[in-house]
Amino acid sequence: MVKEVHIPDGVQANRIDMEYFESNPKPANLDAHSTLARTFIEHHAEQNRRVALVTSGGTTVPLENQTVRFIDNFSAGTRGATSAEYFLESGYAVIFLHRQYSLLPYSRHYSHSTNCFLDYMTFNDAGMVVVNTEYQHQMADVLAKYNKARKENTLLLLSFTTVNEYLWYLRELAMLMQPLGAKSLFYLAAAVSDFFVPAERMVEHKIQSSEEFHIRQPNGATGQPPAAHMEGKQLLIDLDPVPKFLKMLVDRWAPQSMIISFKLETDPSILAEKARSALKKYSHHLVIGNLLNTRKWEVVFVSADGGEKWLRVPAGRRTKSVTGLLPDTPSTEESREPAVEIESWIVPEIETLHTEWIGHGDQR
Amino acid sequence: MVKEVHIPDGVQANRIDMEYFESNPKPANLDAHSTLARTFIEHHAEQNRRVALVTSGGTTVPLENQTVRFIDNFSAGTRGATSAEYFLESGYAVIFLHRQYSLLPYSRHYSHSTNCFLDYMTFNDAGMVVVNTEYQHQMADVLAKYNKARKENTLLLLSFTTVNEYLWYLRELAMLMQPLGAKSLFYLAAAVSDFFVPAERMVEHKIQSSEEFHIRQPNGATGQPPAAHMEGKQLLIDLDPVPKFLKMLVDRWAPQSMIISFKLETDPSILAEKARSALKKYSHHLVIGNLLNTRKWEVVFVSADGGEKWLRVPAGRRTKSVTGLLPDTPSTEESREPAVEIESWIVPEIETLHTEWIGHGDQR
Repeated sequence: MVKEVHIPDGVQANRIDMEYFESNPKPANLDAHSTLARTFIEHHAEQNRRVALVTSGGTTVPLENQTVRFIDNFSAGTRGATSAEYFLESGYAVIFLHRQYSLLPYSRHYSHSTNCFLDYMTFNDAGMVVVNTEYQHQMADVLAKYNKARKENTLLLLSFTTVNEYLWYLRELAMLMQPLGAKSLFYLAAAVSDFFVPAERMVEHKIQSSEEFHIRQPNGATGQPPAAHMEGKQLLIDLDPVPKFLKMLVDRWAPQSMIISFKLETDPSILAEKARSALKKYSHHLVIGNLLNTRKWEVVFVSADGGEKWLRVPAGRRTKSVTGLLPDTPSTEESREPAVEIESWIVPEIETLHTEWIGHGDQR
Repeated sequence: MVKEVHIPDGVQANRIDMEYFESNPKPANLDAHSTLARTFIEHHAEQNRRVALVTSGGTTVPLENQTVRFIDNFSAGTRGATSAEYFLESGYAVIFLHRQYSLLPYSRHYSHSTNCFLDYMTFNDAGMVVVNTEYQHQMADVLAKYNKARKENTLLLLSFTTVNEYLWYLRELAMLMQPLGAKSLFYLAAAVSDFFVPAERMVEHKIQSSEEFHIRQPNGATGQPPAAHMEGKQLLIDLDPVPKFLKMLVDRWAPQSMIISFKLETDPSILAEKARSALKKYSHHLVIGNLLNTRKWEVVFVSADGGEKWLRVPAGRRTKSVTGLLPDTPSTEESREPAVEIESWIVPEIETLHTEWIGHGDQR
């Protein structure tokens, strides 16, 4: 006779949690980052300041331990880096957990090849490098805000590369933020992979495509086949699902925090339903839905009561971008920029919701 | 009776070539880039200047047409961007075919979060943004070289994202460079994927991981199964080999040019053999071999006669990096930088070999 055992959700999550973190390696920088974060959080807890953890950029899924090839999720980090600036303007302290080399708050304004900061610089009569008069005003504004964040110690930058590092850091930071209670906010804008290669199925070296070096590289310990390997002339990759970390975050790592996740889709017809489905599954506060092609123009707030609220920004004037070496792209309707950064609308909305959340205490 | 037909190598390459470019879509910017490149090449041909095509950064392999997930090859673009500067210093005109948002010549010095250019700026007494006195000298040097390249029109920046775009651009540029004869040089530092998803096996929308949206999205036309799809809870991806474009480049697209490729490995024991094997297969001039972990410290030149020549740069002094918001990393032996950029040794070696090549005429 088979005896059915019902495992409550919490216990289930706990077990997945334990298994994942026992079998996938702790990042080398975890302790160093943890120390920095603890000091930062304690400082702002004393100031009674709200703290937002903003995640940003895509996570990688390495196919080899010494990584030459990896799977990535599309994200330059624009949403996260831009939002972080507006959270700082709203008085939050911000932990910016970002993909290494993705866009950062403030420097993002001059990061890309179409906005290379060297194009803003010139030599004055004395042969000194100075900012071109024409761009002084804009750069002074950015630099002043950047210096303010440094001086007031309100922005902590921590970086990840792989999805495994991301999961370890997220858990660690959530635990450290628990003493902040409802004053802590999770704004999960990073594009986190749904799939990964477990440590036990990872090969050590670059996978060889040429037949003369066609060797399966089993990873001794478990005898499991590697996740990526050659079959004839094809490269086959089979990936495991990433454990549902949002469930663990909501239920166990950050039970008192306000938690906002993002849902990026390419097919408009399933966006709202996917957002509602995520809310139902994880019981957090808000899903911000967006489409790949229109993400700078419109987003939809889907809340736990099923409500949908669209934010849509109008188009701005055509502006000529500062280009030096890169050929100018023709200005079409599509290449026009929004009149305002949509994050300047998103963040104040979130701030209002967060104020309500703090007022109500933990009533989730 | 089965009659065996021997297809000569050239014809074989021709057929693969035709098939690939007939069945994989032409990039939207191809014609615009082609026009820019033609003008650039004609200008330098008139000046009797050598032209180097430097490729840089990793290519992506999208798993969906509206791309959320993709496979990538590790490369920040440091090798390519740095080498491009030294080619310019050696008097070459440079077409820099790079992964969009990877490092660029000159701006690379201030691109990363550990070298954020905002940390180099300050306000003077008049409230103007100026470069900190301490960094004037270095930035003046970089800006002067950048301005020189702009003024003399010796650097053309063209970007790609996917491996398909890369292959189309490479073929187009090679054809355009043919009139330069032996004065053209191919320095193929980009990390190009060996595998890809053919257009006919690409799904349109983001692959859904949750069961309720678990639909196979066949791409009607051919009825072939999509390259990436769900099986139960696993994501399976099977990739086709990329056609041997180096063969086509050497034999047909650029028969008079000097062609140098790179080989990146993680396992030291196979590096030289892999380099020799590539030379044997493609009959080009030089393979520069390097290992993932030591690529800034040493490279090996493997030439067609089987010769191996190592370049190894010594360690520099410990230097404190300019960090603003990012936590400083402890300075260990490993984190020390080389005393010189190894590309400042690589490029003059290449220049000498190229001079010999031009002197001998086309004797391959």
